[in-house]
Amino acid sequence: MSATRSNSSSEPVPVALGPHENRLLSDAITRAGAQLADLSEARALVWDGGPRDFPELPEQIRWVQLNSAGVEHWFSTKVFEKYPNVQFTSAVGAFSASVAEHALMMLLAGVRALPAHLEADTWRHVELAPRVGTLRDATVTILGAGGIGRALIPMLAPLGAHVIAVNRSGKPVPGALETVAAQQMNEVWERSDHVVIAAPATPATKHVVERHALDALKPHSWIVNVARGDLLDTDAAVEALRAGTIGGLALDVTDPEPLPDGHPLWSLPNVIITPHDSNPAHHRVPAFADRVAVNVSRYVAGQELIGTIDSALGY
Amino acid sequence: MSATRSNSSSEPVPVALGPHENRLLSDAITRAGAQLADLSEARALVWDGGPRDFPELPEQIRWVQLNSAGVEHWFSTKVFEKYPNVQFTSAVGAFSASVAEHALMMLLAGVRALPAHLEADTWRHVELAPRVGTLRDATVTILGAGGIGRALIPMLAPLGAHVIAVNRSGKPVPGALETVAAQQMNEVWERSDHVVIAAPATPATKHVVERHALDALKPHSWIVNVARGDLLDTDAAVEALRAGTIGGLALDVTDPEPLPDGHPLWSLPNVIITPHDSNPAHHRVPAFADRVAVNVSRYVAGQELIGTIDSALGY
Repeated sequence: MSATRSNSSSEPVPVALGPHENRLLSDAITRAGAQLADLSEARALVWDGGPRDFPELPEQIRWVQLNSAGVEHWFSTKVFEKYPNVQFTSAVGAFSASVAEHALMMLLAGVRALPAHLEADTWRHVELAPRVGTLRDATVTILGAGGIGRALIPMLAPLGAHVIAVNRSGKPVPGALETVAAQQMNEVWERSDHVVIAAPATPATKHVVERHALDALKPHSWIVNVARGDLLDTDAAVEALRAGTIGGLALDVTDPEPLPDGHPLWSLPNVIITPHDSNPAHHRVPAFADRVAVNVSRYVAGQELIGTIDSALGY
Repeated sequence: MSATRSNSSSEPVPVALGPHENRLLSDAITRAGAQLADLSEARALVWDGGPRDFPELPEQIRWVQLNSAGVEHWFSTKVFEKYPNVQFTSAVGAFSASVAEHALMMLLAGVRALPAHLEADTWRHVELAPRVGTLRDATVTILGAGGIGRALIPMLAPLGAHVIAVNRSGKPVPGALETVAAQQMNEVWERSDHVVIAAPATPATKHVVERHALDALKPHSWIVNVARGDLLDTDAAVEALRAGTIGGLALDVTDPEPLPDGHPLWSLPNVIITPHDSNPAHHRVPAFADRVAVNVSRYVAGQELIGTIDSALGY
């Protein structure tokens, strides 16, 4: 793999990488036909860090590739407003497959009562067998039909689950039995067996699953959250779990996060907590490198980038 | 639903049901166009019980529908030999979807380290995240391409796993990347990330996964067994688990079964035991009723039955 496109008539595009060196990412930049460069000379920046140590951007920078799918923590720093002429892209969708796989794992484990099984140290067939549910013919509502939701739908299809997708526009999502616009969301709860939260976190989506939704769900209903902790009203969910009006909670993200020691969710039955590891680093970096390669190729070719951030919508 | 086919020119076929009454099953018989009858007058018997209380069959019985997918416990009773002129059918395939869903659940939960997660009562991201694996690009070998294997393959496809199917003939199984004949089975272990045992239990399949196979697997490899306990050499598997040469065991069936209290599998980490409830009664009876309806319809119409038992092969 050459660091420059030998068949190109123009100089390769200079792209900077920060805040640290990373072989997978620098390889992705060069195999996409660009050239690694210092920030002071680059036209684009691949930023594999958070907003805290984000550098002052020199004037010639036109594009910044960020490394996370959700960027709400960037909005609060006003970086996007500070550089109105720079195109920022998130890594939205790049990690969808791993997160969707995790969501499926947690949903299946919940529905088939795996937590109760793992507590047993004796053959409890009579007690446990009646608790084994199925996704067959179950209605699974997916909040958010972005990358994770769209990756999850085909995973649910061969299990015989029926998917209701909820998105902003209500425009039909491929593979979903039905798509409902976010404004009509309150209609879907009582028709849902289970809910997977995979929506972007914006001010508009805080506590999108709250008391009303929890009340309309069923004693066997599992709620899976792989998006952001505050999309679920945690206190109301703990109450519903204690009252037995829902079946369980499977949370890769929590509110607050990290979940503090002693929080009731650590000890309640029918709770699965995974500490924000649905997309662990050893999955994340190769997936981010693939996205960097695709977007750098597109940038070099003057094509539209994937994951452009819309400051107005907040994602 | 009428108990007789009013548009039939002949008398409805008399079918007996035993050992106990069951509304779902009697409805299935009558909606398929047959008539419930005493065993003494029936031409066929739907037997929702085991071999122990199996009745003496009167001479006019031509077909017996059994209620389990595996029938090795029937072979040892010599019932099939006793009635060479009676066609016996198992319920093979009728419960495949639920068992395949369970196998997928256990495989995903194992690969993504759910047992370790459920033991935590504090936010252990640093320790747990590196243990979250993925089925993406993993090679999953499925032993047995009967109903369960064939139901599992399309569930693995959207997760990006590559399936090697092992069957008796080596005849390509739809959806599998590769099909290997049982005789060549020893070639597949070192190419496998994970193994799902879904083969029928016959004298030929005892300890089909033994020391040699376990040695060739990898420290991240999970073995899932949803078939019969003795297809896996349990003592060798416990040893491999202790030595860390395999990743984990997810067993819905065990050897011995039920697994006795104090068995090391109850306390070893990276073990998932579900007490033979991958196909619990509340899933089983409706699924069996559907199979009864299909086979009674076929019997009435003089068509080939599903699940005919081949005494020579042992399943």
